[in-house]
Amino acid sequence: MSKYLDGIVNSLSFQESKTKLPPPIRWLGDKVEIIDQSLLPHTEKYISSNNYRQVCEWIKSLRIRGAPAIGIAAAYAAALAAFELGCHDKISPDLKLALEEIAGARPTAVNLKNAIDRLLKLDLKGKKVGEAFLSEAHKILEEETNACITIGQYGNLLVPDQAVIHTHCHTGGLATGGYGTALGVIRAAHESGKKILVVVDETRPLLQGSRLTTWELQKLGIKFKLIVDGAAGIAMRKFGVNMVITGADRIASNGDTANKVGTYNLSVLSKEHGIPFYIAAPSSSFDLSTPSGEKIPIEERGADEIVSFSKCKVAPDGIETYSPAFDITPADNITAFITERGIIKRPFSENIKRMLQ
Amino acid sequence: MSKYLDGIVNSLSFQESKTKLPPPIRWLGDKVEIIDQSLLPHTEKYISSNNYRQVCEWIKSLRIRGAPAIGIAAAYAAALAAFELGCHDKISPDLKLALEEIAGARPTAVNLKNAIDRLLKLDLKGKKVGEAFLSEAHKILEEETNACITIGQYGNLLVPDQAVIHTHCHTGGLATGGYGTALGVIRAAHESGKKILVVVDETRPLLQGSRLTTWELQKLGIKFKLIVDGAAGIAMRKFGVNMVITGADRIASNGDTANKVGTYNLSVLSKEHGIPFYIAAPSSSFDLSTPSGEKIPIEERGADEIVSFSKCKVAPDGIETYSPAFDITPADNITAFITERGIIKRPFSENIKRMLQ
Repeated sequence: MSKYLDGIVNSLSFQESKTKLPPPIRWLGDKVEIIDQSLLPHTEKYISSNNYRQVCEWIKSLRIRGAPAIGIAAAYAAALAAFELGCHDKISPDLKLALEEIAGARPTAVNLKNAIDRLLKLDLKGKKVGEAFLSEAHKILEEETNACITIGQYGNLLVPDQAVIHTHCHTGGLATGGYGTALGVIRAAHESGKKILVVVDETRPLLQGSRLTTWELQKLGIKFKLIVDGAAGIAMRKFGVNMVITGADRIASNGDTANKVGTYNLSVLSKEHGIPFYIAAPSSSFDLSTPSGEKIPIEERGADEIVSFSKCKVAPDGIETYSPAFDITPADNITAFITERGIIKRPFSENIKRMLQ
Repeated sequence: MSKYLDGIVNSLSFQESKTKLPPPIRWLGDKVEIIDQSLLPHTEKYISSNNYRQVCEWIKSLRIRGAPAIGIAAAYAAALAAFELGCHDKISPDLKLALEEIAGARPTAVNLKNAIDRLLKLDLKGKKVGEAFLSEAHKILEEETNACITIGQYGNLLVPDQAVIHTHCHTGGLATGGYGTALGVIRAAHESGKKILVVVDETRPLLQGSRLTTWELQKLGIKFKLIVDGAAGIAMRKFGVNMVITGADRIASNGDTANKVGTYNLSVLSKEHGIPFYIAAPSSSFDLSTPSGEKIPIEERGADEIVSFSKCKVAPDGIETYSPAFDITPADNITAFITERGIIKRPFSENIKRMLQ
């Protein structure tokens, strides 16, 4: 895989030339550029900024989303903050506040916090903070991209030919450094010549499945069927699903996993049907300091994401909603984790520590 | 309950005066009137017709939906067909074809077929067919309304005070002759003074939960939380759901039940959490001639209901979808059936036959 390991430019060129997928996030000399995921699939609009607050707004408003991708965005935002606040060789109180603001842009995915923690641990002696952060942000992007490619290769070992793979939300190139986690496994299986069918949950409320996963699968030429989330059970029977693979926003040290709301439902349905249930995630999505799922904060979103749809209102005015963005899949429902360091099997508490520390 | 049994006008007046809910379907001298459910909650538009093909179109396009309501609509459509085709004291070949067309307007709900079968069994000697069908249609409407009120009263016996009740799709007044099935139980519990909280699945693809169930609950002053279907599992934990109640489109003689897609998921989640799972349905939704769920035809809908949302497109063009309107909940996942003839417990094959034959 050395051709993938030459650094970010090569990785992204590889990805772009092979799949016609745009890079999820790029550094353009003095600013960050992303594709606005909230406008996909019908509008492919690139937006850029040299303002870290703007990048925080992108993260909050889900213009960039996916746990690994927002970790990368956080690192670039930190570099922008350091440039703006003019820090030399140490982190000023102002920059510290800015870093806290960036780390808190969304609460559930641990990648934000992990990226900022990594910058805070840098040896800054004799360096300009902005330059040091930027260089580390490039490294994070490169590592995340390569991690996904390796996750794909490990995951592919688990995929039989003719597999029917069920997935939830969006875990492709755009949600990561490129290539994807759960979608990286699917992609690796396809690229290795296996004939696969993907069952795609539309993933309400924001439809990352129907808007983004189908968009990537279509561009990659991988066969799929889009379903509403409520059809997961009947689809498992109808298509004879062989395996379920999703991503993760945070994995506690016991293996309990936070991921897009609906993942827990899918894990229970998998158990009912005797289907293996895998989480594909880079090591940056593990949080050894969180002992179990109960300790993972679950972000609640506003009612508007349920009661309206693009600009269409679909519920009466003034009603009460409950809109968690994530749910917790207990470790008991998970068959294995597919990471860039290998496949982690039971017992999770022991093996996660051994693999990641 | 004699006050509810005086006939359709009294029943509907009772319902309307008490709840400010419009009647789901009415006969206006020479035509049928319904409220167009596809436009709710924001537009309350009444539409009427004296043409049976138009009523079939309403059923196909879900302007009127809900298994009991479309059974009633089928009976009125049959009367309109008989008037149009000018039949006297026997069913002409033309009318027979029209009745088949009406019975086939939607394949899964058995109420359509049951209503037409009932008309076909009428003694028509010395009667005009149209008059006889119309009189029977009035009776079906009256019986369905009264059945729901009785279902509510039986179901209320199962509801503890302070109950958190989870429901799927829409089973209220509009979906029935009035009052509702699963929503009839919720309504009876509320009217008896119990403090309840309802967890409402939005129910993709056509959002009958967010468009219709919340609309009725809001008018009835019953407390609820709207969730996306994917949040069912986390909501069961968060709110401590005590019971799940849904309606049915067809119940096979062994208790396997077809209902809106997503019901099966909910039944599996209920089992996982040890929550009782009830089906509330009138006897017109049972089909003793169908031995099990495998024999119930599942209507598949067009891709457009998934890939767009009102007028908003939410997926790439030209993709493949799988869009079953219903799924099958196996009898094993069902705790009991709440019918107007009483609560049917296990063993279902035996007790359904005993209760309904």
